Amino acid sequence: MRYVVGVDLGGTKTAAGVVAEDGSVLVQGEIPTKNRDGGAAILDATAVLVHFLIERAAEQGAVVDAVGVGSAGVINAAEGTVISATDAILGWTGTHLAAGLTQRLGLPCAVVNDVHAHALGEAWLGAGAGTATSLMVAFGTGVGGSFVVDGQPLLGHHFVGGHVGHFASPYAYHDGAALPCSCGHAGHVEAIASGPAIHESYLRFGGSPSVPDTREVFELARGGGDAAALAAIGVGAKAAGQAVGGLINILDPGVVVISGGLANAGHLWWTTMDLALRQELLAPLASVPVVRASLGNTAALVGAASLVLA
Amino acid sequence: MRYVVGVDLGGTKTAAGVVAEDGSVLVQGEIPTKNRDGGAAILDATAVLVHFLIERAAEQGAVVDAVGVGSAGVINAAEGTVISATDAILGWTGTHLAAGLTQRLGLPCAVVNDVHAHALGEAWLGAGAGTATSLMVAFGTGVGGSFVVDGQPLLGHHFVGGHVGHFASPYAYHDGAALPCSCGHAGHVEAIASGPAIHESYLRFGGSPSVPDTREVFELARGGGDAAALAAIGVGAKAAGQAVGGLINILDPGVVVISGGLANAGHLWWTTMDLALRQELLAPLASVPVVRASLGNTAALVGAASLVLA
Repeated sequence: MRYVVGVDLGGTKTAAGVVAEDGSVLVQGEIPTKNRDGGAAILDATAVLVHFLIERAAEQGAVVDAVGVGSAGVINAAEGTVISATDAILGWTGTHLAAGLTQRLGLPCAVVNDVHAHALGEAWLGAGAGTATSLMVAFGTGVGGSFVVDGQPLLGHHFVGGHVGHFASPYAYHDGAALPCSCGHAGHVEAIASGPAIHESYLRFGGSPSVPDTREVFELARGGGDAAALAAIGVGAKAAGQAVGGLINILDPGVVVISGGLANAGHLWWTTMDLALRQELLAPLASVPVVRASLGNTAALVGAASLVLA
Repeated sequence: MRYVVGVDLGGTKTAAGVVAEDGSVLVQGEIPTKNRDGGAAILDATAVLVHFLIERAAEQGAVVDAVGVGSAGVINAAEGTVISATDAILGWTGTHLAAGLTQRLGLPCAVVNDVHAHALGEAWLGAGAGTATSLMVAFGTGVGGSFVVDGQPLLGHHFVGGHVGHFASPYAYHDGAALPCSCGHAGHVEAIASGPAIHESYLRFGGSPSVPDTREVFELARGGGDAAALAAIGVGAKAAGQAVGGLINILDPGVVVISGGLANAGHLWWTTMDLALRQELLAPLASVPVVRASLGNTAALVGAASLVLA
C-alpha cells in the first residue's frame, strides 16, 4: 500500500493527514496557519506538521513518499507556486510552495488550489464518486467551484478556472442597479448567493440591523415569521439554483456536488435552490443528480493527496 | 502524408473535403442534405459524396484512410450515433451515423456534433490555434459553443456540453418577464442574444413590423437613425458580451473565438459585445484574447477531419 500526505492549507488553519492509496486516512493533524508571518514561516510550520504525521505513520509501518497540497489562493499547479492570495494570508503571493516543501521534507510535492482539491476529494471518495465528470459548486463565504474531468480539475490557462461565482445573475440587482461583487465588478452570482450576501439582502429587505450575520438570518427564517429573512434566503437560493442550472447546461457533468455552509443550512435553502435549478435544465439533462458534498472537512485533504497518488 | 475526409453535415447542406494531416484541403464538394428523407437516405447521399471525393483525391495520388463527421444534432461521439435532432433533419434521431458510413465506405469513421467540429477546426488551424484551451462561442440562429482542451472538446456526460446559450441573462427580460427561449425555458442568453432574438427585440422596441429579419435590422442601424434597431442590436450585443465574459471567468480559456453570423455583422455589435465582456472579467483574465473565427465554412469540415487525424 502506498501512503502520501495530503495538506489542506487555508487562511485560518492547516489540516494534514497521511492518506493511503485506497483513500483511508491513517493519521491526521491540524495547526493554525501562520497567516501574518509570510510564506517561509508558513512553509516551516507546515513542514513540521507533515514531518510529525510521517513519523506517526512510520510507527504503524507506513512509509510516506510524496506530499500533495491544496492551498488557498490562485495556484500555478504546473510550477507549484502561489500566483496570488488575498490579505487573509499575508506574504503568500509568490511563495514557491512545492519547491519549499520539497526542500524542507525531501519529498516530491504537488500543489493545487484548495477548491480544486476539495472537488478532487469529493470526486474520488465522496458525493462525486463513480462518474467521469463532476461539477462541485461551493456556496459559503464566496461562491466557487471546480469541474473535474477524469480525475483532473479544469485549471484554466491562468489557473483561474472554476470561478463560477463571477457570472451575471438576474437576481443580483436592487432597484435596477447591479449589486457590487467581491471581484470589483457587479451583478455576479456571488453578490446575491454567497452566505454574506444573504445577510446583506436581509438588511436591504428591511431586516433588523441588530441581526449580526447569516447564521442569525437562517435562525429567524426557521422561526417562520420573519419576512425579510425568508426573502433574503429565497433570493439567494434561487440565484444559486439558477446559476448551477446554467452551469449544468454548459458543462453537462455526470453529477453535481453542492458544498459550502449553505449546502447544509437546511431544507428551505436546498429545496428553493433545487427547484430553481430544475427550471433551467435542457431536457436531456433533467435527471442529473445534484447532491450535497459528503466528506466534510477531509475533502480537500484527500483531494490534495490524490494529486500525488494518481 | 495521411489523408482523411472531413464532413460537415448540417440541416440544409452537407460539405465534405479531403484533408491532409497538415490541414490543407485537397479537394472538396457539397450537396443538399436530404433532410426530409430519413437517416438511411442521408447516409447514402453522404457516402456518394465522400466516395466521389476519395476518387478525386486518388487521381492526385492521395489515399484516404478514415472519415470524420461533424453533424447537426446531439451526437453520441463514443458510439457514433445521433441521440436527437430537430425536425430540421427528419428521421435523423437514432441514426447509426458512424457505423452506417463505415458499412457504406469500408473506412473507420468518427463523429461529433457540428458545433464541436467547428471549434475543433478553429482550435487546430484557425483563430484558436496555438493554445491548449480555446472557447468558441457562436452567435447566429442560436447561441452555442464548445470548450476545447488539448484538442478534445468537452462533450459532457450526455454529450450535451457546450450549450452556452442556455444560462440566465439579466438582459433576457421585458417588463419584468423572462423572454421565452428555444429550449422551452425562459430568460436565457439565446433568448436575447441570438440573431432572431435581435429581430424580435427590434419589434418589441417599437420597430416597423414590415422589417422582415435581423439582416434588415442591421441595415437600419448602419443608417444610424433607427433607434429601435440600435437598441435591439445594443441589448443583444451586451447580453452576448456579458455571457462570454462570465464563461471566461468560469473556464479561463487561453483564447476565445467568436463565431456565427453576428460575429461578422460589423463594428457596432462587436465593440458593444467586447466592452460588455471586459466589464465581467476577473483581474487576472483581463488580457484574454477575444477574436473572430477565421476559417469560415471550412472550420467544421477540417475539425471533423481532425477527429480521425489525431
